[in-house]
Amino acid sequence: MALPECKTLLLERRDHALYITLNRPQARNAMNRAMVGELTAVLDAVEADLDVRALVLRGSDGHFCAGGDIKDMATAHAAAAEGDSEAFYRLNRSFGELITRVNAAPQVVVAALQGAVMGGGFGLACVSDVALADQSARFGLPETSLGIPPAQIAPFVASRIGLTQARRLALLGLRIGADEAARLGIVHEAVTDAAALSAGIDEVLAQLKRCAPVANRVTKSLLLATRTRELEALLDDAAAEFARAVTGPEGGEGTRAFVEKRPASWNQ
Amino acid sequence: MALPECKTLLLERRDHALYITLNRPQARNAMNRAMVGELTAVLDAVEADLDVRALVLRGSDGHFCAGGDIKDMATAHAAAAEGDSEAFYRLNRSFGELITRVNAAPQVVVAALQGAVMGGGFGLACVSDVALADQSARFGLPETSLGIPPAQIAPFVASRIGLTQARRLALLGLRIGADEAARLGIVHEAVTDAAALSAGIDEVLAQLKRCAPVANRVTKSLLLATRTRELEALLDDAAAEFARAVTGPEGGEGTRAFVEKRPASWNQ
Amino acid sequence: MALPECKTLLLERRDHALYITLNRPQARNAMNRAMVGELTAVLDAVEADLDVRALVLRGSDGHFCAGGDIKDMATAHAAAAEGDSEAFYRLNRSFGELITRVNAAPQVVVAALQGAVMGGGFGLACVSDVALADQSARFGLPETSLGIPPAQIAPFVASRIGLTQARRLALLGLRIGADEAARLGIVHEAVTDAAALSAGIDEVLAQLKRCAPVANRVTKSLLLATRTRELEALLDDAAAEFARAVTGPEGGEGTRAFVEKRPASWNQ
Repeated sequence: MALPECKTLLLERRDHALYITLNRPQARNAMNRAMVGELTAVLDAVEADLDVRALVLRGSDGHFCAGGDIKDMATAHAAAAEGDSEAFYRLNRSFGELITRVNAAPQVVVAALQGAVMGGGFGLACVSDVALADQSARFGLPETSLGIPPAQIAPFVASRIGLTQARRLALLGLRIGADEAARLGIVHEAVTDAAALSAGIDEVLAQLKRCAPVANRVTKSLLLATRTRELEALLDDAAAEFARAVTGPEGGEGTRAFVEKRPASWNQ
Repeated sequence: MALPECKTLLLERRDHALYITLNRPQARNAMNRAMVGELTAVLDAVEADLDVRALVLRGSDGHFCAGGDIKDMATAHAAAAEGDSEAFYRLNRSFGELITRVNAAPQVVVAALQGAVMGGGFGLACVSDVALADQSARFGLPETSLGIPPAQIAPFVASRIGLTQARRLALLGLRIGADEAARLGIVHEAVTDAAALSAGIDEVLAQLKRCAPVANRVTKSLLLATRTRELEALLDDAAAEFARAVTGPEGGEGTRAFVEKRPASWNQ
Repeated sequence: MALPECKTLLLERRDHALYITLNRPQARNAMNRAMVGELTAVLDAVEADLDVRALVLRGSDGHFCAGGDIKDMATAHAAAAEGDSEAFYRLNRSFGELITRVNAAPQVVVAALQGAVMGGGFGLACVSDVALADQSARFGLPETSLGIPPAQIAPFVASRIGLTQARRLALLGLRIGADEAARLGIVHEAVTDAAALSAGIDEVLAQLKRCAPVANRVTKSLLLATRTRELEALLDDAAAEFARAVTGPEGGEGTRAFVEKRPASWNQ
C-alpha cells in the first residue's frame, strides 16, 4: 500500500490501523479543498487493503475539525463575482461527497474527538463506526447563525441521532459537550481527557482485532444497506454472503481456531 | 399578518414567536373539528411570514390536549347511523392531516406540555421541533383500551421515538410521565413545574433568535426530507440551497456581522 | 386452537398468553432446523386465534438462545462437500425468515431474556414488542470473530437500535449486559434476577389485558407498516381501519364500558 503525500494530513500506520490526523492547527483543522482531496486519496489508497482494518480519524493540537475553511469561501465568493455561478455549489457538494465516502469506507472508522467538532467536522464525526470524545469536545451546527443552512451535514446528523434530536440541535444552533453528545448518540462514549481518549481508542482497536477483516467489511456493508434496500432482498443477498464466508478462508480458519481453542489468524 | 378569529384557540404574539394556546379547558383542550380548522387557518396565515419564527403550542388551564373530542364522535355516530359511511373516516383523517401540517410548518414549533398529553395531543407533541414537559404531564395512547386503534397518531409516535419504543408504548396502552418521556425522546427536556416550563420556553426562543429565519426554514425542510427522499438527490438540492443562501441577503449579513463582531440583524 | 407437537419447545397456555420456551438446554437452546420449523408451526396455529393475545418467548435452564446450532452447520458442510451449493444459503435464510415471521406476529411478543442472547437469539429478541432482561443476560454478535457475518441478524439489530449503535456493536463483536442493553434500547427494561423477570412479565401481561385484541393487532400492523409504506397512503388506510373499529364490536363495547364505568369485556 502506497499512501499519498499529504500536506493537510498526518498519516501513521500502527498495526492494523491507519491513524489519519487532520493537521491544519492554525485553522483548528478546518476542512479545505486540499484536505478533502487528500482524504479522498487516502481512502482510495487503502480501499482494497485488508491489512488496514481501522481508520482512526482525529485532529492535531486539541481540536478535531472546526468546519469549512474561510479562505475557500472567499475564493468561491470571488469566483461567483466573476460569473462562476457554480462555485458555491461545487464547494459545498464536495464536503457531502467526502462525508458519504467516509460513511461507506470498508474499514471500521473510529473518531477520536476533542475541541471543535463543528459544522463539517460534526458531519464527519456522524459517519464514524465508533466515536469517542473527551470533555474538551464541543459539537455544534453554527451555520444558521451565519445565515446559511448546514446543507451537507444536517442529513447525516438526522441519520446519526434521529429526526427528533436533530430538529432541536440544528434549528436552535446549539453547542453541546461530550456528555450530551453521548446521551444523544452522536458519540458512543464520553471520557475525561486526552489520555483516556487515547486509551479508549486502543481498547476499541484491540477489540476489533478479534473480528475477521472480510466478515467485518461484509457486515458494515449490510448495515449501511438497511437504509436504502428493501429488507427481503437484502436478507437474500445476506444469505449468499453468509454461504460465501462460511465456505471461504475466514470461515474455515474461524471454525478451526474455535475447535482448537486458539486465536484465529487475524487475532494475533 | 392578519390572524384569524378563533373560538378554540388563544393567540398571542410575543417578539418573533406566536403563542397558540389550545383553549377548551372544559374538555381538557380536547381537539374538535373547530380546533382543527382554526389551527389550520392559523398555520395558513403565518406560513409566509418570516417575522414569525416560532410557534409555541400549549394548552390552557394545566392541560395540553386530552385527545379527540367526544361530541365529535357522537356526531359521527349519528351521521353513520343515517348512512354517511365516510363520517368516521373523515373525522379521523382530518386529525392526521393537521398533525402532518404542523410537522411541516416552516416555523420552529415549540411544545410546552403539561397535564394531559393524550391521543391526538400526544400526536401533536410528536411533531414539535422542541418539546418541554413539566412533571404534571401524562403521555399516553389510551385508544386500544377503548377498542379503537390510535390510527393517525401511531405513525408519528414511531417516527418520534423509533419502532422499538413505540411498540411497547402503543401495544400496552401505557401512560408515562415527563421523565420517561424525556428518556424515550418524546420530549427534549423534563422540568419541574409551570414556572420552569415557562422559563425553558423563554430560553429556547432566545437561543432561536441567533438563527437566521430563512436558513432555519431551509434546514427544517432538509431534515424532514431525509425521511422521504433519496440521500444523493437531497444533497444535490441542499448544495443548491447553500449556494442560494450564501449569496443571498442572510448569507451576506451573517458574514458581515461575523467579521464586524456584532449580532446579525435577525438577532437584535 | 390445536397446538403442534414439539420436541424443541415447551408450550404453556396461561390466560390470554402462550408461553413458548426454547428447550434445548444441552445446547443453551441454540436454534436448529427443528426449532425453526416448530416455532413456525406454532405461529401458524395461533395466527387467527384472538384469545391468544400475547406470545411470551423465553429459554429453559437460564439461557434464552445461544444462536445457531453447530450440528446444523456440520450437516450443511457435509451437504456442500457433496455438491449441494445451496445448503448454507438455505440454512442461513431460514433463520431470517423465522425472525421476519416473529416480527410480524399479530400477537404482542414479549421476550424474557436470561443468559445467552447471542447471534440468532439476539435477532429474535430484537423483534419482540416488549423485552425484559435480567442481570444474567449477555447479548452479542460473535459471528465475525468466527469469520462469518451476522447476515440475517444485523438488519434486525439496526432496525432495533438504529444504525449508530448497531455499527459499534456488530463491528467490534461486543458482548454486553442487561443494563447496557436497556440503555441502547435492545430491551425495554433490565431487572435484577429471574424472580423479578417473572414478575415483570406478569405486569406486562396484566397491562396488556386492558387493550382490545383486534385494535391491538391493527395497531401493531400500522406500526410495522411505517417502515415500508409511504406515510400519506398509510394514514389513509389507518383512517379506514379506525372507521371499521369504531363501528365494530370492540369499538361499541369499549364505548359502553367507558360510559358505564366498568372494565371492557376483554379486560376481565
